[in-house]
Amino acid sequence: MIPLIEDSRVPLYRQIYDYIKKEIQEEKMKAGEKLPSSRLLAKNLCISRSTVDMAYDQLLSEGYIESVPCKGYYVCQVEGLYFSKKKTAEKPVREKKNNPVYRWDFALNGIASGGFPHNAWRKLSREVLSQEGDGLFQLGDPCGEPGIRQAVAEYLHSARGVDCDPDQIIIGAGNDYLLMLLWVILGRNRKIAMENPTYLSAYYDLIHMGCQILPVGQDSQGIRVEELEQSGADMAYVMPSHQFPMGMVMPMKRRMELLKWAQSKAERYIIEDDYDSEFRYKGQPIPALAGFDQKGCVIYLGTFSKSLAPSVRVSYMVLPVSLMDTYLSLGHPFSVTVSKTDQKILELFLREGYYERHLNRMRAVYKNKHDLMVRLLKEMAHICTFSGENAGVHLLVRFHNGLTEREAVLRAEDAGIKVYGVSEYRILESKTEEDQVLLGYATLKDEDIEKAMKELKKIWEN
Amino acid sequence: MIPLIEDSRVPLYRQIYDYIKKEIQEEKMKAGEKLPSSRLLAKNLCISRSTVDMAYDQLLSEGYIESVPCKGYYVCQVEGLYFSKKKTAEKPVREKKNNPVYRWDFALNGIASGGFPHNAWRKLSREVLSQEGDGLFQLGDPCGEPGIRQAVAEYLHSARGVDCDPDQIIIGAGNDYLLMLLWVILGRNRKIAMENPTYLSAYYDLIHMGCQILPVGQDSQGIRVEELEQSGADMAYVMPSHQFPMGMVMPMKRRMELLKWAQSKAERYIIEDDYDSEFRYKGQPIPALAGFDQKGCVIYLGTFSKSLAPSVRVSYMVLPVSLMDTYLSLGHPFSVTVSKTDQKILELFLREGYYERHLNRMRAVYKNKHDLMVRLLKEMAHICTFSGENAGVHLLVRFHNGLTEREAVLRAEDAGIKVYGVSEYRILESKTEEDQVLLGYATLKDEDIEKAMKELKKIWEN
Repeated sequence: MIPLIEDSRVPLYRQIYDYIKKEIQEEKMKAGEKLPSSRLLAKNLCISRSTVDMAYDQLLSEGYIESVPCKGYYVCQVEGLYFSKKKTAEKPVREKKNNPVYRWDFALNGIASGGFPHNAWRKLSREVLSQEGDGLFQLGDPCGEPGIRQAVAEYLHSARGVDCDPDQIIIGAGNDYLLMLLWVILGRNRKIAMENPTYLSAYYDLIHMGCQILPVGQDSQGIRVEELEQSGADMAYVMPSHQFPMGMVMPMKRRMELLKWAQSKAERYIIEDDYDSEFRYKGQPIPALAGFDQKGCVIYLGTFSKSLAPSVRVSYMVLPVSLMDTYLSLGHPFSVTVSKTDQKILELFLREGYYERHLNRMRAVYKNKHDLMVRLLKEMAHICTFSGENAGVHLLVRFHNGLTEREAVLRAEDAGIKVYGVSEYRILESKTEEDQVLLGYATLKDEDIEKAMKELKKIWEN
Repeated sequence: MIPLIEDSRVPLYRQIYDYIKKEIQEEKMKAGEKLPSSRLLAKNLCISRSTVDMAYDQLLSEGYIESVPCKGYYVCQVEGLYFSKKKTAEKPVREKKNNPVYRWDFALNGIASGGFPHNAWRKLSREVLSQEGDGLFQLGDPCGEPGIRQAVAEYLHSARGVDCDPDQIIIGAGNDYLLMLLWVILGRNRKIAMENPTYLSAYYDLIHMGCQILPVGQDSQGIRVEELEQSGADMAYVMPSHQFPMGMVMPMKRRMELLKWAQSKAERYIIEDDYDSEFRYKGQPIPALAGFDQKGCVIYLGTFSKSLAPSVRVSYMVLPVSLMDTYLSLGHPFSVTVSKTDQKILELFLREGYYERHLNRMRAVYKNKHDLMVRLLKEMAHICTFSGENAGVHLLVRFHNGLTEREAVLRAEDAGIKVYGVSEYRILESKTEEDQVLLGYATLKDEDIEKAMKELKKIWEN
C-alpha cells in the first residue's frame, strides 16, 4: 500500500511515482516484477485511474517500468548507481589565487577608464532591439551577417588600405577563436614561424591546436626574413603595424621581403595580426601588409578588443579567396560565434560614423598618455632608453644602468607597481639576463602615470 | 621640383609625401639616391621646414626612405609589387544560390515567430548597459563570468538534476565552438561513436577537427551499447533527452548501460547533448544523464539556441572535474567567446525568473503546435505512423503506404512545402530506400501547420 498525503503540496500522481521509483531504486521491487494494473491500484488507493496512469506514464518514460502489450507493466532491470545525489565535501575546482594588490598596474591589455562609448552603444543597442523583426533571432550566416562584413570591408579599405570582398571576411568572437578556425581551414601539420618575443596568447592558441611553432629572430625592423627562410616554416605570424611586445613598426622594405618570401613557394602564408593599428600618433597609418598582397598570401586579423573593449568579443579575419573557397568547400561551416544583435550594433556603429569619432577621441586620449610617458621616460635617460613609441598603448624600456628585468620587476612590485618583463613573452626561456620591461599605459589615469613613473624613477635609479 | 597645389584639400605635407612615394614606387628615384635636406627642399618649395619634415617622417616610418645620421635621407631598396591597387574583374567569392521558395517550411531549427522575449531582453539589456562600471568592458574570465556560471549551475540543478560546481562550467558561443574546445581538452586521436542518423552539425564539427567518427546503430531506446562496446570507440556522442533526428527518449535502463560502458574503462567519456530538453509536454522532464554520473564520465552540453534563440549564441559545457583540471593545467585558456554584456543579461534573465516564465510560455506555445501536429498526423494513419512525440519541436513520420522518403520530399517540394528526409542526417549514405521524413513545427504558425498538413495528406495519399 502506498502512503498518500491528501493535502500535500506534492500532487498525488507524483507521490505514487516517487514511491514506486524509490522501491525500484532500492530493489524492494525487483526487475521483472509485475505492477498492479492502474485500475486495481486506483481502486485500492481510492483515487482516480488517470492519476495512477500519470504516475505510470512517467515511470514508463524514464524507463523504470516497461509495458508489455496485453499483459501489463513490469519493473525494468536498472543497473548500478543512478541516484542524483548532491556530492559532498568536494575540493573546490579552482583554487582562488591570492594575487598581490598593486597600486598601479602598467597593464598591457584593457582600455582607458571611461573609454567605452557607453552612450552610443546603448542608443544603438536600443535601436537594434526595438526593430522587433524575428529575423534578428534566427540563426545567421556562419561567416557573419553581410551587413557587418560589408562595413568592415569598407573600414579596411579606407583605414588600412586593404581591398577585400566582404565575402572574404569571417566575423568571430575573438582572435583565439579565429585562430582555431584558421587551423581547421589550413589543415594540420603546419609549421608556423613566430617572432620571439611575441604575442604569447596566439602562440598558445596555435600550440594547443597542435601546430609546430618555430621561433625566428627579429631585429629593429621586425622578423629576420633570411632566418625565416632557413627555418623551414610555411607560415609566419607577424604584427607589422606594431610588434608585440617590442613595439617596432615594420618598414616597407622588410614588408616586401616578407611578401616575397610568402610568394616564392606555394602554400606559404603570412598571418598579419593588426591588433592595435588604430592607434598611431605620428603621421598617417601605414597600410596593412594585406593591402600589398596581390597573390593571396596574407591572412589578415583585426579586432575590436583594443579599439573598443576586450569584453565586446568581436574580431574579424580576411582570408585570401582561395582559402575561403577551401573553407566553404569543407561543407557545414562552424556557426558564427557573435550574436546577431552585437553584429548589428557594431555594423551601425561603423556605418554611422560612431567608430571614427570614437577612434579619434581615443587616439587623443592615448596620445596624451603616450606623450606623458615619453616625457617622463626622457627624464629617466640616465636609467634607461625606450622604444615602441608613436603607436599602440605600450612602450618598451631598456635599462642601461645595469638593472636587470628581474630586479626591475621585483623592485616595482615591492613598491606596489606592476610592470611586465619582456622575458614573459619569450617562446623559449632565455638564458641570458634580460634588461627590458614593458609599460602599458592604456588603463592608468594621467595623474597615476605621473605618480607611478616618478616612483619607478626613484626605485630604478641605482 | 614637386608641383604643389596651395588651395587643395590635400595638405601640403601629404602632397610632398605622395609625390616622393610615387617617384620611389615607379623607380624614378632609385635605391640609395640621396634626398634633398628638408631645409633645402623647404626653401625651394617656399614652404615651412616642418611641413617637409612631416612628409619625410611619414616616408621614413613607412620605410621608403632611411635616415643616415649626419648624412641625410636616402631612398630604400623596395622590392617587388607593392601597390595597393583595387583588384579588377574578380569573380564573386560566393555564388548566390537560387534557393527554391517554399510556402511552408517544416524547419528543424529556429524558434516560433514572436518567441523571443523582446521586452525582458531589452529591459535587462538597458539595465546592464546603464551600470556604467568599466569592469563590464575589461576582458573577463575565459570560462565565463562567475555570475552566469553560478546561475547556469542552479538551473541545471533544479531543472536537469545535474549537480555541478560553477567552476566545472565553460560558457561558449555555441555548441560548434564548445566542441572545438573539447577537442583541445581531450587531446587528439579520439574515436567517437555517434548514433546514425545523428545531429550532423556536431558530426562535421568533430570531423573538421580530425576526430575519427564511428557510426553505431540505435534501436527504439537509443544507441546500442553492445555495438558501442564492439566499435572500439572511447567516446560516445548521444542525445538521451530527445535523440536528433529520431526523437526517442532514452529510458533509464539504457542510460545505466551507457554509463556502465563509460565507467568500465579509463578515459572513456560520454558527450551528452541536451539540446532541447526544455520542451517536454508530458510528465516531468527526465533528469540528464550527467545527473547520474558519479565517476566523471559525462560531458554535458546545453544551449540557449533552442530555448531562447539561435542567434543569441550562448551554450555551456559541464566538464568532469578531472577534465577541467586538464584544461586549466594546459595554461593560457582560450578567451571567452561571449561578450560580457550578453553574459550579464543572461545571468539576470535566469536569476530573476524571466527564463522560467519564458520556458513555460514557450512550452505552452510548442505544446499547442505539437498537439495540433499529432491530431493532424492521426488523420493520416492510413499513410504513415509517427514518433518522437511529447518532447522537442519536431516529429518523425514513417510511411507505410509504399511512399519513399525521396518521393515524399519531392512531392512536397512541388507543392511548395519543405520537409526533411531522414537520410540527410545519416553519416553513411544509406543504400536502402528510406521511408521516413522529419517535420519541425517550431517556426510555423498554427494556421499554416493546418494548411500545410492538409496539403501533405492529399499529396502523400497515393
